[in-house]
Amino acid sequence: MKSILFRFFGGLRISHKHKNIFVVNYRLFSSEPSLWIKPVVKNVYHRTHTCGELNSSHVGQNVTLCGWLEFQRLDRFAVLRDGYGSTQVIVPENSHEIIKELRRTPLESVVTVSGVVEKRPESQIKKVPTGEIEVIANDFSVINAVRKKLPFSIRNYNKASENLRIKHRYLDIRYPEMQKNLRERSKLLMKMRNYLINKENFVEVETPTLFRKTPGGAREYIVPTKCAGEFYSLVQSPQQLKQLLMVGGIDKYFQIARCYRDEGARPDRQPEFTQLDLEMSFCSAENVMELIEKVLFYSWPQQLQIPFPRLSYSDAMKMYGTDQPDLSFKCPIFEVTEVETYERDSTTTKGVKIPQAAEFFSGEVKKELSKITKDSAVEVTILNYKKKNFKSNEKSLLNFCINPEKFISNHCIESEDLVFIARGEEKKVLQLLGKCRVWYLRWLRSEGITGPWESDDKGKFLWLTDFPLFETAEDGSLNSVHHPFTAPHPDDLSLLHTNPLLVRGLHYDLVLDGYEVGGGSMRIHCPDLQKNILSMLNIFSSSLGHLIDALESGAPPHGGIALGVDRLVSLMVGAKTIRDVIAFPKTTDGHDPLSGAPSTVSDEDLDYYHIKIQSSKPVKL
Amino acid sequence: MKSILFRFFGGLRISHKHKNIFVVNYRLFSSEPSLWIKPVVKNVYHRTHTCGELNSSHVGQNVTLCGWLEFQRLDRFAVLRDGYGSTQVIVPENSHEIIKELRRTPLESVVTVSGVVEKRPESQIKKVPTGEIEVIANDFSVINAVRKKLPFSIRNYNKASENLRIKHRYLDIRYPEMQKNLRERSKLLMKMRNYLINKENFVEVETPTLFRKTPGGAREYIVPTKCAGEFYSLVQSPQQLKQLLMVGGIDKYFQIARCYRDEGARPDRQPEFTQLDLEMSFCSAENVMELIEKVLFYSWPQQLQIPFPRLSYSDAMKMYGTDQPDLSFKCPIFEVTEVETYERDSTTTKGVKIPQAAEFFSGEVKKELSKITKDSAVEVTILNYKKKNFKSNEKSLLNFCINPEKFISNHCIESEDLVFIARGEEKKVLQLLGKCRVWYLRWLRSEGITGPWESDDKGKFLWLTDFPLFETAEDGSLNSVHHPFTAPHPDDLSLLHTNPLLVRGLHYDLVLDGYEVGGGSMRIHCPDLQKNILSMLNIFSSSLGHLIDALESGAPPHGGIALGVDRLVSLMVGAKTIRDVIAFPKTTDGHDPLSGAPSTVSDEDLDYYHIKIQSSKPVKL
Repeated sequence: MKSILFRFFGGLRISHKHKNIFVVNYRLFSSEPSLWIKPVVKNVYHRTHTCGELNSSHVGQNVTLCGWLEFQRLDRFAVLRDGYGSTQVIVPENSHEIIKELRRTPLESVVTVSGVVEKRPESQIKKVPTGEIEVIANDFSVINAVRKKLPFSIRNYNKASENLRIKHRYLDIRYPEMQKNLRERSKLLMKMRNYLINKENFVEVETPTLFRKTPGGAREYIVPTKCAGEFYSLVQSPQQLKQLLMVGGIDKYFQIARCYRDEGARPDRQPEFTQLDLEMSFCSAENVMELIEKVLFYSWPQQLQIPFPRLSYSDAMKMYGTDQPDLSFKCPIFEVTEVETYERDSTTTKGVKIPQAAEFFSGEVKKELSKITKDSAVEVTILNYKKKNFKSNEKSLLNFCINPEKFISNHCIESEDLVFIARGEEKKVLQLLGKCRVWYLRWLRSEGITGPWESDDKGKFLWLTDFPLFETAEDGSLNSVHHPFTAPHPDDLSLLHTNPLLVRGLHYDLVLDGYEVGGGSMRIHCPDLQKNILSMLNIFSSSLGHLIDALESGAPPHGGIALGVDRLVSLMVGAKTIRDVIAFPKTTDGHDPLSGAPSTVSDEDLDYYHIKIQSSKPVKL
Repeated sequence: MKSILFRFFGGLRISHKHKNIFVVNYRLFSSEPSLWIKPVVKNVYHRTHTCGELNSSHVGQNVTLCGWLEFQRLDRFAVLRDGYGSTQVIVPENSHEIIKELRRTPLESVVTVSGVVEKRPESQIKKVPTGEIEVIANDFSVINAVRKKLPFSIRNYNKASENLRIKHRYLDIRYPEMQKNLRERSKLLMKMRNYLINKENFVEVETPTLFRKTPGGAREYIVPTKCAGEFYSLVQSPQQLKQLLMVGGIDKYFQIARCYRDEGARPDRQPEFTQLDLEMSFCSAENVMELIEKVLFYSWPQQLQIPFPRLSYSDAMKMYGTDQPDLSFKCPIFEVTEVETYERDSTTTKGVKIPQAAEFFSGEVKKELSKITKDSAVEVTILNYKKKNFKSNEKSLLNFCINPEKFISNHCIESEDLVFIARGEEKKVLQLLGKCRVWYLRWLRSEGITGPWESDDKGKFLWLTDFPLFETAEDGSLNSVHHPFTAPHPDDLSLLHTNPLLVRGLHYDLVLDGYEVGGGSMRIHCPDLQKNILSMLNIFSSSLGHLIDALESGAPPHGGIALGVDRLVSLMVGAKTIRDVIAFPKTTDGHDPLSGAPSTVSDEDLDYYHIKIQSSKPVKL
């Protein structure tokens, strides 16, 4: 065997039936052919246990483990790791062969160890799953050795830059944290499916991703076809398709659906993402919200209280300056009523008090926060009652025409409180204070600083309801706040043509700790109303002809929701970004450092798809 | 309310904050606004039962049903249908209001009926789920009326052309057959997931579909990005990604994965399709096959016998002329040993006998079959022993130098048998006879003709094993029979550079009734061997750098499989094409008559993606 290979390495010309094969680049081959033959011949690796399951009940048993050599010390103490955990291995002092083999095995090689489970000495017992035992090795062999210097070690979590971690994701996934994230994600989705299919009789239907462009909404990736000038679009959601399923009589549909959006470089967004997409017929908004509460109650690892509390859009804006309020913190926005001015003034003054947080508001933090405040068309002042400097804040209050004594007394300002005050147009004041509130409170939490601002509502889901149906675009035209298929609130129908901005949509958002994790609505099932709304939005119904046709062909009343799985899972496992719960994420600018995608394609491909690349927009003559 | 709307229909100009809204095309609106307001206001439709669940145990109960008006007769007998079944509704003779309403309601409108369940008269009881009862209506109302003439009725299944059915899929899905197909599909996939996750501890991991082009293999759709000249490719399978997961320590991975292939117009292929994709570490081919047997045993609606039988590639070729043998029929290919010739001849003569099938082999059938035989470089004769015309076949046998007496006696030819004989190069003879065999036997079955050719093995899964690793392309170069990551059989390693065409791959295909429903293999986990194979295939490893890097970083031995879900489900439910088990399929040429995809895109989109359309390949100067 070896001789044949070495002859071959020497450049043997081998002929067979039709062709002479001559492998020029024989340097590609390993200089040790034994290395590449062995693992193929021995093609069954029987492990008796994983590296995460042995405990004192296994003491005395002969076991065989397979895994990655995570660590070794003095060629006698080794740690074997797989996706389930780590096990400590001890090589007996007189096992010279194993010691020799262990010495020359690079860390992170795949190895197999056989041996006997023993209880660790009392002093070395650790409170981890396999911390009670160690395996005394009587056999050790390398299954597949690491051939190169690895870009980072799997011992120091998060020491590598994120870019490096994504580029070498096959190493990064070995971290226990990544293993946990991916495994918990799988479990959550399975529980959701289980509830929907087995308890509620839902049907999972796969809908196409190669579809026609949806008018309005996010930019959709286009996919050229062999027909010149004709493109598919990658769906941004199965919205239209699930509505068509309702018309088709699949009255309880769901799908864990892959969706696509070309949003350019946005942090915490991915070109492709996953949503739990769901639609029901003959239902009300209440039915959809109740269903989701039950789905989450059944599948969420922490105990949830249902029904979830609700907040109207207008209350959320008033109290938190955002439609994704973070109720894991207290400190709502309050009205500053102590403004004393004789001039008629259309501005509003509002504030947020973070009690006992003054001492942490350093110059550096202030500088970071000023990035948020500087571009707003709103006047802001920050009152820092550190070291009881009530006096020094007086000037700031007077500048805002606020009576300092009344202010301090009415709002119970105490020493060590921090207060943000903003004055300007009401909507902008609310938005800015909302941003400052969340930014500073999250910064405190990220630094591990707790205080009276922490709320018991952390980890509690919240419904946002009563959104407006329309908003005005910059050019004054009407836009959908959500999408053009959202049904208007029946009580507001009479306003549709008199004051459309006051019409509420039958829309509901699900929010967790300040992040929107889902949104849905009752849809318009009446074709005439749908055409009316599309026309108000200046969307030509020709591109939605199939939807109008469907609504005219016997459409049941229907509504649904979509939950963002990536965000939901990242909050569930406490990951810092959604990328940590995605097996192979792309960077924020849509690149995949692992494969090098996107990349150039061949001229043959371009010709086949009848496209040419233009590096810049041609000048219009 | 009404007055406001009618003022609006008259063309009222309504102004608000920023813009005058004037809906020009008010003819879009229904002339009966009551029609479009009603369903929105009444937004809860409480049904007590579906249209498929009432039986004699409900007699006497008050019920409310929601559904589609499938049929009505004499304005008094109606059938209400939903995704679960149909229920007969009787309107009492004196219910004039309901009779009037029913009369003017177009079929397929969405309606709701309340009434009392009664037992049908004995003579009218039918053996269908709701066949014992009828509902005596005391309330009937239209929820959403059909507004147009529908392109086809839901009463006559399969009368509409497939193109029309796909274009109006929201109607087509109302057919009980389509409902069943989609619901059974969902159930099968749920059972598979349940087995893999809950019984075998597999992890479902979602892998990206926007990736880098895989060298070799099918044509992949490309997706332009905002970076000029850079494209994603839509994955044809998660093959590389799941191998990277193995290197990352997810040792039991699966995914119900969406895959993409641009194969142009091929019947029974879709631009996007679904596969059960699966991979395991530290396993053997046996382990993968056993696992799949258990998955199917657990999830398949019919009782299966496991383990599945196995057939080697070479036996399958010899006996059935194909690697997807249809064992639901008997009649293997046999050797014709009665050839009498003095010339030295390199040709092979083989035959297939279909006993008692002569009478069905009409001139028309023969003509259809000749489309298969005409272009093959093989001589063919068809012996038709209809009406005992043994004599007339003698000449054909003599033309093939076959001794007629010996032939008839050795192969037990009897009256009414049909025999295909072919002579030529062995491989081509086998392939041709294999095609003729399956074409004619499937034609017989499609005509409802049964006979001694039917085998007891219908509906039984079969493993094909021992495939060759390589085949020769037309230019004489080596190609992978499956893909370049398939591990060679360890016993054949010594042939790799001496006679690569004799090397078997550790590959296995799963076949059901003549259709390949899955395929998998042990993968190469040794980087040196992988580089060697890529080099033999003339694939530059630069485009697979990430995979080689991964194999060099501690890759466990691993293998897996992918099952084609669309095909599997179509065989399970007995659908004629895979399109019947896909909610929104595309036509064989990749068009979606429903949405009109693919379609043109805006110049703004083309500019954003830096592409230009060229209608034909430019002339090279």
